[in-house]
Amino acid sequence: MTEELPVAQSVRTMLEGDRTCELLGIQVEFAKDGQSRATMRVRPDMVNGHAIVHGGLVFSLADTTFACAVNSYGPPVVTASADVTYLRPGSLGDVLVAEAVTRARRGRSLVCDVTVRCGEEIIAEFRGRGAQLKDDRGRPGG
Amino acid sequence: MTEELPVAQSVRTMLEGDRTCELLGIQVEFAKDGQSRATMRVRPDMVNGHAIVHGGLVFSLADTTFACAVNSYGPPVVTASADVTYLRPGSLGDVLVAEAVTRARRGRSLVCDVTVRCGEEIIAEFRGRGAQLKDDRGRPGG
Amino acid sequence: MTEELPVAQSVRTMLEGDRTCELLGIQVEFAKDGQSRATMRVRPDMVNGHAIVHGGLVFSLADTTFACAVNSYGPPVVTASADVTYLRPGSLGDVLVAEAVTRARRGRSLVCDVTVRCGEEIIAEFRGRGAQLKDDRGRPGG
Amino acid sequence: MTEELPVAQSVRTMLEGDRTCELLGIQVEFAKDGQSRATMRVRPDMVNGHAIVHGGLVFSLADTTFACAVNSYGPPVVTASADVTYLRPGSLGDVLVAEAVTRARRGRSLVCDVTVRCGEEIIAEFRGRGAQLKDDRGRPGG
Repeated sequence: MTEELPVAQSVRTMLEGDRTCELLGIQVEFAKDGQSRATMRVRPDMVNGHAIVHGGLVFSLADTTFACAVNSYGPPVVTASADVTYLRPGSLGDVLVAEAVTRARRGRSLVCDVTVRCGEEIIAEFRGRGAQLKDDRGRPGG
Repeated sequence: MTEELPVAQSVRTMLEGDRTCELLGIQVEFAKDGQSRATMRVRPDMVNGHAIVHGGLVFSLADTTFACAVNSYGPPVVTASADVTYLRPGSLGDVLVAEAVTRARRGRSLVCDVTVRCGEEIIAEFRGRGAQLKDDRGRPGG
Repeated sequence: MTEELPVAQSVRTMLEGDRTCELLGIQVEFAKDGQSRATMRVRPDMVNGHAIVHGGLVFSLADTTFACAVNSYGPPVVTASADVTYLRPGSLGDVLVAEAVTRARRGRSLVCDVTVRCGEEIIAEFRGRGAQLKDDRGRPGG
Repeated sequence: MTEELPVAQSVRTMLEGDRTCELLGIQVEFAKDGQSRATMRVRPDMVNGHAIVHGGLVFSLADTTFACAVNSYGPPVVTASADVTYLRPGSLGDVLVAEAVTRARRGRSLVCDVTVRCGEEIIAEFRGRGAQLKDDRGRPGG
């Protein structure tokens, strides 16, 4: 995350204390107006014996991207539930790109979708459901 | 994972090549007859600024436990889709325990639920949907 | 629904104004302590050209059973989200039996699973997520 | 469904034997190239005591719209699983409009989203996951 990119201040604050992005090598490139984009390179310690990335880490990338999108509005959002559909496995060395778009907001509830791609291919479709908090007990990524 | 515990051979084979369990410190304790149990301790590099574990890592624990349960039958299973509902945040130092039970199988399709707890408290409920493969292209955890 | 069966008063009140159970021929047999059971016979106006019941009506049966289970606690519950996995098609003339069990409650949130069977066979697995209201704006089935 | 509207032949065939659209008053307006639109008016026999439409019927509308979209490609598709998030209740007399867009296809798997609106307001977001069959055992709506 470089300073020049448009990442909302509320998301910067959220990411400052976050250690998981570092653990997984997730780079947040953009987070504003309910949308965001983040990337993760599939490292050797992220794959199984078939050199395929663990589905939980694909989910983690999507979940982080979701959290950046929905927290870009300001008030902290907690993830209530989420689902993921796996279309194609990601492999060792792949750079996965996740893009989040908030689809619907009503009251404190919201729905935000994330597509994870490798190049042109869709790896996974993620949908998260969140609730905005009234205070600052927020947590990124669930 | 110690040798004495009842982990099906198909799951041992699957886990041998897996690097993610090591990355996340996931311990598989049991995997047999469509059921399994695994644990993960929440480390400092797994939390956000509020000392709360990243939802994606809770999902990863559940997804791994799911994979161990459904692969205990023998033929490799790929995760088609999964969802998670977060009930309570896990915190730094918590030992999360995930228990998987296969609910339904029909043809090559199956549904398997995982409950993640910290002590008596439910942290998350996970449901995975998988498909058994005919050959050995399987991958753990998605 | 006969008077002799153990249906919580809060559920009876909910069902009194409900017209959909009549439309779909859903019979609530039991609703107490977060559990419930309901049945629906697949009529000729519920199937497609292959004599297979519409998935939405299987969902409706499950959703009603969910609503009865979670409203049996007393305070009205609204469905926040739900998912269904179809294992086997139901056919014309089948009597579908749905059984709901609340899996987890925390604060005002809850998760409740419904299994829909025809005889011994599982037709579908449903999971609903609800939130208890503080007042009486509740609605059955979503 | 009038003859003039662009409904793919495969969808027309599917709808011919379908009785549920009639039961629920669902009108399919469009179904082509993986997209579709259908409407349903909330009748007195579709609501609860608060004059709010049953969530299962909102799901049924979305599921039908999903089926029309994914079957517009030709080979019959069965619904594997689906989820719905309720944002706002629909009421007696509302005309609900569902619009489906296929998001991803890979091999025989596909993901298709449906948004249900009343006027400008989003009532529900639906996501369905389907699998194309090789033969003609297809069924609409699940």
